[in-house]
Amino acid sequence: MKLREGVEWAVHCCINLSWVSPDTTVPAARLAAFHDLPTAYLNKQMNALGREGIVASRSGPRGGFRLGRPPQDITLMDVAAAIDGSAQAFLCTGIRHHGPAGRITGQADARTPCTIAQAFSLAELEWRRNLAGRSIADLADAVQRANPAAPEHVRRWFDQP
Amino acid sequence: MKLREGVEWAVHCCINLSWVSPDTTVPAARLAAFHDLPTAYLNKQMNALGREGIVASRSGPRGGFRLGRPPQDITLMDVAAAIDGSAQAFLCTGIRHHGPAGRITGQADARTPCTIAQAFSLAELEWRRNLAGRSIADLADAVQRANPAAPEHVRRWFDQP
Repeated sequence: MKLREGVEWAVHCCINLSWVSPDTTVPAARLAAFHDLPTAYLNKQMNALGREGIVASRSGPRGGFRLGRPPQDITLMDVAAAIDGSAQAFLCTGIRHHGPAGRITGQADARTPCTIAQAFSLAELEWRRNLAGRSIADLADAVQRANPAAPEHVRRWFDQP
Repeated sequence: MKLREGVEWAVHCCINLSWVSPDTTVPAARLAAFHDLPTAYLNKQMNALGREGIVASRSGPRGGFRLGRPPQDITLMDVAAAIDGSAQAFLCTGIRHHGPAGRITGQADARTPCTIAQAFSLAELEWRRNLAGRSIADLADAVQRANPAAPEHVRRWFDQP
């Protein structure tokens, strides 16, 4: 079970965008340069965030990305789902209905949801709830508590042409 | 984020093995036939369970698999980790230390764990805790509540030569 590495990139970029000066849009190349990431691949992640309204983009010579809504309204679950998809990690292929198992226990089982799939769904729900309870603003605050100068330093770097 | 499909197979096989007559060992081919699964691939999953002591195997003409410990002592987390590995789903590649980000915020950040990695770890811990709180015995009981005849029917099928 692996989350795509783009999730880490996207969360960092959202935190950085929460710190840039208001109305600043940042090109993907600049977001990528800050963490020494490949621009083309980061651009794909940023467009995935854009499709979910997590970032907004402006095209043209002064174009780029900014947050699509306030950082307290963007959760880690929003970012993870935008980059990694929102499908369940546990895929029930219904093998209880296949072969002799299906013939032996099938009729009774067909009326009830699969106990195994339910158990994994419940565990995943805890994971989703936890990530949905933590926003980009929460994380930006935590980074700032550990490193009070970070927001100002990041803002200054992104304000440079 | 996807769990390997072998997790579903392995959990079903553990439930089935919890229902067979005591001291019965079941060949992988027979476990596979019950759910119409490919024997060679299921055998790989069963061997992975064996490496973690979840099942025990006996070789020879009357060989096969049985549970390696009581079903109440085998959790869904045990089975998922045996089949899918126990690595974290969120991989922190430390991009906060790369490029200008590392130079600007690096010194302060180097002293603290990454806030983003911590947040994803905590969410994953909830998922693990939830799966670790549910045993093969719990699931077998739940299946039996929905379908009281299931254990007896399954036992009879596996008792056939």
